[in-house]
Amino acid sequence: MKKALILLGCPESPSQTPMAVYAAQKLAKIDYDVTIASTPAASKLLEVSDPDEYYIKNKIDIESCLDSLEKGQYDLLVGFVSKDAAASYFITFYHLLQCESLALIFEKDAELLEEFENMVAENTDAKIVAVKAFHNPTPIKVRFDRALKEL
Amino acid sequence: MKKALILLGCPESPSQTPMAVYAAQKLAKIDYDVTIASTPAASKLLEVSDPDEYYIKNKIDIESCLDSLEKGQYDLLVGFVSKDAAASYFITFYHLLQCESLALIFEKDAELLEEFENMVAENTDAKIVAVKAFHNPTPIKVRFDRALKEL
Repeated sequence: MKKALILLGCPESPSQTPMAVYAAQKLAKIDYDVTIASTPAASKLLEVSDPDEYYIKNKIDIESCLDSLEKGQYDLLVGFVSKDAAASYFITFYHLLQCESLALIFEKDAELLEEFENMVAENTDAKIVAVKAFHNPTPIKVRFDRALKEL
Repeated sequence: MKKALILLGCPESPSQTPMAVYAAQKLAKIDYDVTIASTPAASKLLEVSDPDEYYIKNKIDIESCLDSLEKGQYDLLVGFVSKDAAASYFITFYHLLQCESLALIFEKDAELLEEFENMVAENTDAKIVAVKAFHNPTPIKVRFDRALKEL
C-alpha cells in the first residue's frame, strides 16, 4: 500500500479543514494509507470535524513529524499552502521526502496567492494547484480532483 | 424521535464547518434526527467536509427552509452566529419555530461578539453560548458540550 502525507499549516481559511478531510477520503479511496501532519490548531479542527475518526485515521504533529522524516517514508506529499509558513513547511518536507508532491495553494488575496505560488515554484519541482479561494471550496476541489487523475 | 435544526450562516470562521459536523454528531448520539439549514457556501463546505455523508444526513437551503417553516416542526434549534446576517436568521427561525433554542455565538473580535450577543439576547429567550474564537474550536466545543447537558 502506498503512503501519502497531507501537510496542514495554520487554518486561517474556512476551506482548509473541509478540504483536508476531502483529500484524505479521496486518497484513501485510491488505496493510499494517509497520514495528516498538522499544527496543533489545525489538528484540533480535524478532531472536531471528524469526531468518530471515520475519515482520518492517522494524525501527527507537524514538528514531531519533521524530526523523524526520511526519504522514502512516503510516496506522495500533498501540502495545503495558505500562509507563508505553510509554504516553508512544504518546501522543507519536499526536500526531505523527495517523493511525488502536490502543493494546493489557496488564498483570497491575489497578490499573496502569487507570492506563495512563486515561493513553491522557485524552490521545488512539485505539481502546483493555485487558486483564489476562501470560503468556497469548489475551485480547490475541482483542481485537486484533476491533479489526482494525473498522479 | 426528536428533531433538531442546525442553522449555518456564511462560513467566515474556520471553526464553523468542523463545529457543525461535531454538533450534528453529538445531537445524533442523543437521538435527535438532525437537519442542517445553511447558505449555499456553508453547504458546499459541509459536502466537502463529509464526502460519504457519514455525519450529515439531511441538508436544506436556508431560504427554502424558511419558506415552509412552522411551529412544532423541530424540537430544538441550534444556530451558529458569527455574522449579523446569521443573528437575524437565528432570531427569525426562533420566532417561527417557538422551540427550545441555543445560539452558538463566536467571533474573533470582542466588540462584534458582544454586538451579536446583544442582538440575540434582546430579541429571543434562547440559551446563549458566546465566546471569542476563530481557528481554535475548543472554547466553542467545551461550551456547546456543557449546554447540551442542560437541555
